[in-house]
Amino acid sequence: MEKWRTALVTSDATSIRIRGYDMTDLMLHRSFADTVFLLHRGRLPNTHERRLLDAILTSSADHGAGAPSCATARLVASGNRQSFSAAVAAGILAIGDAHGGAGAACMEMIAEGLETARSESISIAAAAAKVFREARAAKKRLPGLGHRVHSTDPRVAVLFGMAAEAGIVIEGIEFIRALEAEAAAHVKPLPINIDGALAAVLYDLGFPPAAGHLLFIVGRVAGLTAEVFEEYTREKPMRIRFDVEYDGEPARSLENES
Amino acid sequence: MEKWRTALVTSDATSIRIRGYDMTDLMLHRSFADTVFLLHRGRLPNTHERRLLDAILTSSADHGAGAPSCATARLVASGNRQSFSAAVAAGILAIGDAHGGAGAACMEMIAEGLETARSESISIAAAAAKVFREARAAKKRLPGLGHRVHSTDPRVAVLFGMAAEAGIVIEGIEFIRALEAEAAAHVKPLPINIDGALAAVLYDLGFPPAAGHLLFIVGRVAGLTAEVFEEYTREKPMRIRFDVEYDGEPARSLENES
Amino acid sequence: MEKWRTALVTSDATSIRIRGYDMTDLMLHRSFADTVFLLHRGRLPNTHERRLLDAILTSSADHGAGAPSCATARLVASGNRQSFSAAVAAGILAIGDAHGGAGAACMEMIAEGLETARSESISIAAAAAKVFREARAAKKRLPGLGHRVHSTDPRVAVLFGMAAEAGIVIEGIEFIRALEAEAAAHVKPLPINIDGALAAVLYDLGFPPAAGHLLFIVGRVAGLTAEVFEEYTREKPMRIRFDVEYDGEPARSLENES
Amino acid sequence: MEKWRTALVTSDATSIRIRGYDMTDLMLHRSFADTVFLLHRGRLPNTHERRLLDAILTSSADHGAGAPSCATARLVASGNRQSFSAAVAAGILAIGDAHGGAGAACMEMIAEGLETARSESISIAAAAAKVFREARAAKKRLPGLGHRVHSTDPRVAVLFGMAAEAGIVIEGIEFIRALEAEAAAHVKPLPINIDGALAAVLYDLGFPPAAGHLLFIVGRVAGLTAEVFEEYTREKPMRIRFDVEYDGEPARSLENES
Repeated sequence: MEKWRTALVTSDATSIRIRGYDMTDLMLHRSFADTVFLLHRGRLPNTHERRLLDAILTSSADHGAGAPSCATARLVASGNRQSFSAAVAAGILAIGDAHGGAGAACMEMIAEGLETARSESISIAAAAAKVFREARAAKKRLPGLGHRVHSTDPRVAVLFGMAAEAGIVIEGIEFIRALEAEAAAHVKPLPINIDGALAAVLYDLGFPPAAGHLLFIVGRVAGLTAEVFEEYTREKPMRIRFDVEYDGEPARSLENES
Repeated sequence: MEKWRTALVTSDATSIRIRGYDMTDLMLHRSFADTVFLLHRGRLPNTHERRLLDAILTSSADHGAGAPSCATARLVASGNRQSFSAAVAAGILAIGDAHGGAGAACMEMIAEGLETARSESISIAAAAAKVFREARAAKKRLPGLGHRVHSTDPRVAVLFGMAAEAGIVIEGIEFIRALEAEAAAHVKPLPINIDGALAAVLYDLGFPPAAGHLLFIVGRVAGLTAEVFEEYTREKPMRIRFDVEYDGEPARSLENES
Repeated sequence: MEKWRTALVTSDATSIRIRGYDMTDLMLHRSFADTVFLLHRGRLPNTHERRLLDAILTSSADHGAGAPSCATARLVASGNRQSFSAAVAAGILAIGDAHGGAGAACMEMIAEGLETARSESISIAAAAAKVFREARAAKKRLPGLGHRVHSTDPRVAVLFGMAAEAGIVIEGIEFIRALEAEAAAHVKPLPINIDGALAAVLYDLGFPPAAGHLLFIVGRVAGLTAEVFEEYTREKPMRIRFDVEYDGEPARSLENES
Repeated sequence: MEKWRTALVTSDATSIRIRGYDMTDLMLHRSFADTVFLLHRGRLPNTHERRLLDAILTSSADHGAGAPSCATARLVASGNRQSFSAAVAAGILAIGDAHGGAGAACMEMIAEGLETARSESISIAAAAAKVFREARAAKKRLPGLGHRVHSTDPRVAVLFGMAAEAGIVIEGIEFIRALEAEAAAHVKPLPINIDGALAAVLYDLGFPPAAGHLLFIVGRVAGLTAEVFEEYTREKPMRIRFDVEYDGEPARSLENES
């Protein structure tokens, strides 16, 4: 088999290095959020970037036992107590386009919108209006807008405030706010949801679109392990039941088969 | 279906609370390690506890692309590019008794050993000697000792030094060091490995044994997302091949079947 | 990397062989149940063995959308429509000691009980009585007995009848029936459940204990793919909601932290 | 929570029915392939359909320990021996667009191509030529053609022969053969691979495109359980190692950080 190549981690008998930095130095002098940033970006964050990443991970950590990822982890823990890993992994599998994974699609939309603004020398607001019109014409949902629970998600303003304070360029935030305004003006209020807020801030921090999905997983896993631990310690196996109504074929017999 | 009960997270239209604390306050004023500690313990850590947890998570984050969890995530990304979640989840599934999950068994051993010391009013060293003798008699491996790569894992001393500085009671560390000394005196040098060091420090921080497995997952997921991202961006699908040698039944024919 | 060894499958540019048999011959002349038997046993089944395995796989295939494995697969499909594999895999993760995986533990118990009968030259009934007394003294549940839904699971008698007809030795069935009789005589009626019936028949067919878990997976995956397909085609994403009641710490403020 | 609806399975205290048929009748009189067909199609297959489905499932069952799905399952079994389910599920996660999942995309292409033939009243060959030209212009790969190992996959001719014998309409097979001829005439020989053959036959059997992915999983899981069992019984944990070459940032020090 060919050797694998990696630019992430190297280890030998006496040391482990993450993207060049000695792991023990990172343990002594840096936080876990620094390590997360370093692994995905190849450099350490400054104080503002770290604080934003900490906030992003905390905002993704948990949203209640009934969130699909958390409920899935509990359901698996309910049937299978042989492996913590099985329950946590199942929770992660519930994260996708409809739950937690919209951030990646939203980051791609932001990147394309801002690219349009640049290449066509139009304002961010004009680019957002164009993206909005095209999505409406194609009857496509805009990722990052609208939420089934929160009319105004409290995490959004906090993330945007921290980003503004951090002194980073906030074109991603400008873009999604312009998009929200377009929706409000032409359809109905569709407030920026947490996926959209995370997408905008991660874009402004310089992360690639995949981070909208991957870093949500990093944050959510902390909630999943806590949910699984609570399920193991507080509940009996097989406690979760569902009411199911059968509406298929009536009872039939093999004898009637040719 | 019966309502589910939880003491972890509650959310409504205007706020989300983690174990009573407003999530936006945590985002503004606390780190992700604080959130991890809070979710699993029900209270926020002090500065020493947070620094130790940060170090624990960083020490677990990655150990190279060839570690079973990382290699599994890459292998899945190599066959299936439809879902980041699938690749990360598969990596977590590789974490178990033989890889990353030994911490939980080690914490149980530490807890039992220290309970023996208390109930029998013997020293920690005497309790460790007893645990060692029993394991040897039963020909059982001691979790937390010995490593296939590092003769002396550099992370161990760093974690133990930070714990000593933190001013917490370090009976777990005392116990596993006494166990290491027993092994060296009676069998051969079996240095404390990272699972054992994490187990001892998590025990001293007051975490339950399950944390030896669950918090390893929380740390490792940061490496898994980075490994998966590198695989997607740097490698072609289906690049990983294995040399397999068949040594089973020779070619045979159905015709010889009765 | 060292070459891997395997006795299962070999393939080259012109042929694929499963345990020595040409795959295309199997496709032309044998059923999928034959392939399942061959892969796990190294030989093809006779007609009776194949019929029993077909019945075992069908009996495991599905038990309704609310069974933990099926509900898990649906919940993942509800949040993540990027990967059929993610939903099916999550469903499999819910299979464990409490759901579908009890067969393996039951097969081990049967194997030990029958070994006791042989080594102590006592009857199967006497060995079952001994296993029953020991479990009762240790307050351990007996795997394979008792069910939360069916007072008499209709699948059990059918499997036992087919096994009797097949002319195989049915010591496993004798043993678990003796155990059921002990429970009825000394505690309360605990009818043999499907895990117990599968375990007994798989034991009598000569499968190792692991098959009690592994072959349940093979059967159940057919239900999981159908459940996932129904969820994709009939339901909207994020349709599944849970009622959750928070009973943890009341709202508290960071300001009160030292 | 709202009741779930399902047309698949219903069970009560005395019976379980799959799409209306009593499960015990199916166990007594039908094969597992019949159950698979019934679950996904809502009716039982005739003899020809069952034989084809059996052949399809066998052809998917295994392709050697080094196939991504099989290797993933082994790698997980190598690190985590706490759960058979974890290893099998991980193997399934490796099934996706690049491995085993191409069948779904191929079935969609076939369906669109044949729809074009119908709506434009052109021959199947002409429709295939059109699909080929468009894919070539867009520089898109055609799913179902080309293979990295087999120049001529032996399973393809067998499946097509069985389909022809079965007396079903074989427009799907005609279409993919016409596509293969186009590629040979205009680019280079790109023989139909097993994904393409499965896709064509499943299309001709009346399955929806998703079946190209889902039924591959049903077949492959039989190989995965056998691979996992062989890994558990024949190999030590942590036996699998990879050669990894680090080519990232050189060693650097935190002290140089601003």
